[in-house]
Amino acid sequence: MDETFVIVGGDAAGMSAASKAKRDDPDLDVIVFEKGEWVSYAACGMPYYVKGEVEELEDLVAVTPEEFVEKRDIDLRTGHEVVAIDPEEQTVTVEADGDRFDQPYDHLLIGTGARAIEPPFDGIDLEGVFTIHDMDAADAIDDYVDERAPETAAIVGGGYVGIEMAEALSARGLEVSIFEMLPRTLQPFGEETARVVEEHLREEGVELHLETAVSGFDGEERVEAVTLEDDEVPADLAIVGVGVAPNVDLAEEAGIELGPTGAIATDEYGRTSEDDVYAAGDVAEATNVVTGEPDHVPLALTANRAGRAIGATVAGSPTLTGGTAGTAIVKAFELGAARTGLVDEESASEAGFDPVSVTIEAPTRPHYYPGSTDLTITLVADRESERVLGASLVGRQGAKRIDTVATALHAELTVAELEGLDLAYAPPFSPTWDPVLTAAKVLNGQLE
Amino acid sequence: MDETFVIVGGDAAGMSAASKAKRDDPDLDVIVFEKGEWVSYAACGMPYYVKGEVEELEDLVAVTPEEFVEKRDIDLRTGHEVVAIDPEEQTVTVEADGDRFDQPYDHLLIGTGARAIEPPFDGIDLEGVFTIHDMDAADAIDDYVDERAPETAAIVGGGYVGIEMAEALSARGLEVSIFEMLPRTLQPFGEETARVVEEHLREEGVELHLETAVSGFDGEERVEAVTLEDDEVPADLAIVGVGVAPNVDLAEEAGIELGPTGAIATDEYGRTSEDDVYAAGDVAEATNVVTGEPDHVPLALTANRAGRAIGATVAGSPTLTGGTAGTAIVKAFELGAARTGLVDEESASEAGFDPVSVTIEAPTRPHYYPGSTDLTITLVADRESERVLGASLVGRQGAKRIDTVATALHAELTVAELEGLDLAYAPPFSPTWDPVLTAAKVLNGQLE
Repeated sequence: MDETFVIVGGDAAGMSAASKAKRDDPDLDVIVFEKGEWVSYAACGMPYYVKGEVEELEDLVAVTPEEFVEKRDIDLRTGHEVVAIDPEEQTVTVEADGDRFDQPYDHLLIGTGARAIEPPFDGIDLEGVFTIHDMDAADAIDDYVDERAPETAAIVGGGYVGIEMAEALSARGLEVSIFEMLPRTLQPFGEETARVVEEHLREEGVELHLETAVSGFDGEERVEAVTLEDDEVPADLAIVGVGVAPNVDLAEEAGIELGPTGAIATDEYGRTSEDDVYAAGDVAEATNVVTGEPDHVPLALTANRAGRAIGATVAGSPTLTGGTAGTAIVKAFELGAARTGLVDEESASEAGFDPVSVTIEAPTRPHYYPGSTDLTITLVADRESERVLGASLVGRQGAKRIDTVATALHAELTVAELEGLDLAYAPPFSPTWDPVLTAAKVLNGQLE
Repeated sequence: MDETFVIVGGDAAGMSAASKAKRDDPDLDVIVFEKGEWVSYAACGMPYYVKGEVEELEDLVAVTPEEFVEKRDIDLRTGHEVVAIDPEEQTVTVEADGDRFDQPYDHLLIGTGARAIEPPFDGIDLEGVFTIHDMDAADAIDDYVDERAPETAAIVGGGYVGIEMAEALSARGLEVSIFEMLPRTLQPFGEETARVVEEHLREEGVELHLETAVSGFDGEERVEAVTLEDDEVPADLAIVGVGVAPNVDLAEEAGIELGPTGAIATDEYGRTSEDDVYAAGDVAEATNVVTGEPDHVPLALTANRAGRAIGATVAGSPTLTGGTAGTAIVKAFELGAARTGLVDEESASEAGFDPVSVTIEAPTRPHYYPGSTDLTITLVADRESERVLGASLVGRQGAKRIDTVATALHAELTVAELEGLDLAYAPPFSPTWDPVLTAAKVLNGQLE
């Protein structure tokens, strides 16, 4: 009898695994249970739908359910929620349309993703208060802006979702305020990058309330204000984006081990503590290539890659899921901000390194070539091994240069090796010394 | 007595060495002999001066002679030509203003650069025929366009200088034809990239004459036509850009060894076959990081870096000059084309590898995000070691992505390791799988 590969969750990790497994082993029965209706969608594109740059929400869907079923021969069942896993019996319990049934599996992938955290704010259920948890939320915000014509927006949380939504709502004509409990926005990007982004947000008319705790929302039926400790700020629309938490309940109840980050612990093949049970994507940990420790980086590429690797493994070719460098990039109005690895001395010290870092400003083109802008780069290294540990950068152009540093992290290059890279130069693209090389040169000077 | 560091040639390699040596060891006497008047200028910026995007030729000068003398305390002597080196006596013979004198040295750097090759074309001395050998040539072309208002331009040679000049002269309103002896332009960029560039050149109105040998130029006083084997094509201005040759005469006469490429052979510290004599920049070889063999890559970064390393070495801290990956990038009208390492199976075979390669087209952004364009990437690897050997790519955006592959070459990553890199993704910057990762994924499929 053919083996059965059951997948819980039909987004990046799950559908990548399903597609790869079925392609590599067409005899495999691949069943995907997705509790919602959307599968394989680009959550990262939602702000640009709200902004108006993406016309239809459906445009964010990479592959439609029909294509999965008809072209890829995957038994995709939307509206099906897996409510229990029995690793002993190798079955999952599924609820759909009020019915409940058990589905046996030979291989199981948990790809239940993460959810937007909903803090216990007063008035969080008021109309006009949203969390960005899925495509329906993006649709609801878009409708609310169309129908209610709000003039002011409050965004609770200065992470990348908050900043992308600030750009989107500003573009729709709203006056936007961001409320952040911590002293700075974009926490994982480090202080120098955050400082540049914050200055730019203010230039673009966003009001920043840092070190400001929100206690809830006020209003009759609809939100009318954000309530702070001893103040109220009017807001016709509010978005709560204070981070995500992995959806681990199902795994936890089945006795599957979680790791130190609170996400599901996995080995280098994505295997969990239970036989034949894998986990991937926003619900699972991945190994950080800099620290060698488990990390939780709920981003799309990690999910896609791990899902695909597990698909190959299940189909018979054991494939490593690959490490994460925690590489991320975000657009903040006219700026691009990016990070990889350990971006400040504090986090590097915590990881056991003896860090040294520099922050430089360098132009993206020679001084004489039109249109050059500055890139602010923070580069961090370990004093003893001289290994590059990470970088954060921000500027109007060239934020994808973070990839050079990300590659250096995977290869465990030293600062001198980074400085010695033969990167591409011509006036329309770069100064002779690419800004990344300049940062390495300055940091190398600190190491001597 | 203080030691004397004599440098022959005041451009990228020479002035980098002078500045670094003097900064690291202020007691060193640093003397630079430059036979022309221009020092430390960005030759790569000349096409953009002719195009009109750089206003003054002086803007291309990174550091003025006055700054070198007054601020950096370097004994820079323009108009001084070194006509002989005596490695036994450790002296150079210098000619200036009709005088001739000997200058002793403790350390010598030969940074005499390369010159534009002037084929023995009939009529090459006609007015209106230019080779791009230095800043004065750029000035002369600019003046000629202003004063003679030529309507047609013939560019002999389809390398990157030819293509940059085609863009510049088109922008000045001339009808441009390119004549290339070989079956394709941009030879070092490989066939796939050249094909895309050629299509674009034609779209931009450039007439391409491939596999077409030019025999000379015709005209009375001024050039009026390019002469081919059995044809003539009218041209009011002609530019000859058929490559460069290292200025090795001085070194050769002094008995300094040349390498297999015809440039000066150097070791990993830039030392030549003679004691205390270094060579760097366009006149010298560098080690190719992919093949491990001597290579001649007359580009600015290699020159700057080697010069700087030699400056540090002379000042007392032995510093490696660093290898070259042959990384290059060129703007061709709206396209960016870039290359690194070995870009086709032919050159990889010649270097002793068992090559496998793929060419893919991949978007620079997700399908739903506005403004996405395609990047055509050719990726080459060795079948046995699975090591990445090189890449060439071309597109309207994102050509600097070549840096990711260049970094992988330095780190000797395999195709699977390249595919496993955690590169930056967000819709405004990249699809989930960066085009470089997609190319690696497809190539990895070929290796299995």
